[in-house]
Amino acid sequence: MPDPRPTLEAVAAHAGVSRATVSRVVNGGAGVRSSLAEKVLRAVDELGYVPNQAARSLVTRRHDAVAVVIAEPETRVFTDPFFAQQLRGISKELTAQDSQLVLLLVEGKDDYARVGRYLAGGHVDGALVFSVHLDDELPDIIRGSALPTVFGGRPDRGGRRTPYVDCDNRGGAREAVRHLRSLGRERIAHIAGPLDQTSAVDRLDGYRDVLPEADPALVARGDFTPAGGERAMRELLAHNPDLDAVFAANDLTAAGALRVLHEHGRRVPEDVAVVGFDDMEPVAEQTNPPLTTVRQDIEEMGRLMARLLLRALERGGDQADSLDTAPASVITPTALVRRASA
Amino acid sequence: MPDPRPTLEAVAAHAGVSRATVSRVVNGGAGVRSSLAEKVLRAVDELGYVPNQAARSLVTRRHDAVAVVIAEPETRVFTDPFFAQQLRGISKELTAQDSQLVLLLVEGKDDYARVGRYLAGGHVDGALVFSVHLDDELPDIIRGSALPTVFGGRPDRGGRRTPYVDCDNRGGAREAVRHLRSLGRERIAHIAGPLDQTSAVDRLDGYRDVLPEADPALVARGDFTPAGGERAMRELLAHNPDLDAVFAANDLTAAGALRVLHEHGRRVPEDVAVVGFDDMEPVAEQTNPPLTTVRQDIEEMGRLMARLLLRALERGGDQADSLDTAPASVITPTALVRRASA
Repeated sequence: MPDPRPTLEAVAAHAGVSRATVSRVVNGGAGVRSSLAEKVLRAVDELGYVPNQAARSLVTRRHDAVAVVIAEPETRVFTDPFFAQQLRGISKELTAQDSQLVLLLVEGKDDYARVGRYLAGGHVDGALVFSVHLDDELPDIIRGSALPTVFGGRPDRGGRRTPYVDCDNRGGAREAVRHLRSLGRERIAHIAGPLDQTSAVDRLDGYRDVLPEADPALVARGDFTPAGGERAMRELLAHNPDLDAVFAANDLTAAGALRVLHEHGRRVPEDVAVVGFDDMEPVAEQTNPPLTTVRQDIEEMGRLMARLLLRALERGGDQADSLDTAPASVITPTALVRRASA
Repeated sequence: MPDPRPTLEAVAAHAGVSRATVSRVVNGGAGVRSSLAEKVLRAVDELGYVPNQAARSLVTRRHDAVAVVIAEPETRVFTDPFFAQQLRGISKELTAQDSQLVLLLVEGKDDYARVGRYLAGGHVDGALVFSVHLDDELPDIIRGSALPTVFGGRPDRGGRRTPYVDCDNRGGAREAVRHLRSLGRERIAHIAGPLDQTSAVDRLDGYRDVLPEADPALVARGDFTPAGGERAMRELLAHNPDLDAVFAANDLTAAGALRVLHEHGRRVPEDVAVVGFDDMEPVAEQTNPPLTTVRQDIEEMGRLMARLLLRALERGGDQADSLDTAPASVITPTALVRRASA
């Protein structure tokens, strides 16, 4: 049976314009005189032409595209290898399902409203969101778009049932600190991450689980960057010249801390043992000395996020309510990787 | 005058379902039973509700979003700082105009058809495309989408009038090679980039402009990566043990070449002077020794691309044909930056 839908050519003939002009009008491209555009749109109406994929997708409700939003400025997205690794996993999984990865970049929080409009605008089937901060409006904006969503990292204080993929931050941190204690270290410091992110809070909690009596002066605030690690390490050495170990909230922080320890003539691991978190390629292997760290499989976590979302989208059509049947969250295991620094 | 368009609430009341259900249906989200979805869509039809931004944009033909496509696998996009710098410029400019940067990631050329569908699907106002290769189908696919487009780098063999932003690759290369000659170097080698990209061809042409009689064995093929620079440098040393200078097609290539020169006990610049291209941060300043190179303002080129496109989109509505009134291409100047390597 022939397809009864009118073609682009039929619209062009009906409107008395070229195929290219019709294409430009219905694909939302600029560059067509308004009188001409009206002629085309009239022909579209008269023939009942379904103009483009955007309109078609109002019927099929599938765009074969998934948005990724990273709640960090574009500059951090491209300098912290964590994001590249997570995107790699997401990209592989989406590509295997012929779904387009649509990365929405932002300069800062002022751009979230615009991101929300794009997400609500019928351009993607779902969203993967990571590096959310506790004061971000982003999770609420995204929930407002009613798009199926999976978070990378536990997004907030709990209570809400948005599915997420996270590693066992608290358990991994406990293992790191226990390892330092097993080496006989007694003044174990912690450089925390930004405490508006649950991963940083959980790692600090893991440190406190093992060392509930630790001197509060042994905990300094970092921000998951090497520069933050340097600042925190200087502060720790100033207040605790006798420290003999550091558990850093991530590998980039540890890399900064190592530089400051060298500067101060402290030998690693002889004087100060250092453990990181992430087992980030290529950071952890290239520090001096190579870094003992808590491994999480970042790329695999990206794959898992994409897989959870795609599964929810597949089931969607047969379910009464995607929120009630939302996939469960997944917590992935961590493992201590021993290198020379501890 | 009140807005006569029916609201989401009106549709919900008409269909006898919740506002959230209507929102989910019309925003293309999954998770609504099909019988329910049909009820909603019937109400949408009966009330003449314009369901979402995608549908509205069929009328306004503006999405306030611009796609960026980099014709490289996602892994290269996140390891070559060139792309991050160009994206930075694009992001700043688009954000200033409240237009969403939509980065479409690909794993390889097999994904271009899907990218083409997304571009033609009414999701963005225009496209910025860079790192195109001569055998890529991408430019044709993008032209087929009839979207206003600006290329980063001259995209092809010429002839077509797609606007682009590029630096003066050939002139910059000439300056690099003339500088090496002015230092008294007589056996000047060139490590070319991938010759399926016009930037690499232009830089090779610039080298040949200055040294038309150069021994062909002094030219080796690289691929704009440090690993490619290492391979090419080994090859050059094997065939030309007497070489006394290298002009590398970009800074990453030069970084690889420097490593191999050190390995072979060649002093830089005493035995072999090295010049790169790009003045890439932080690469060029962190090589050993710091790299003399040809500077192009990569971030500014990204800004220019975005600006050209936004200007074309603004003018679009009043013009008969965006292709005829396409903005002219822009060639930005280069400048030699002298550091220790030459």
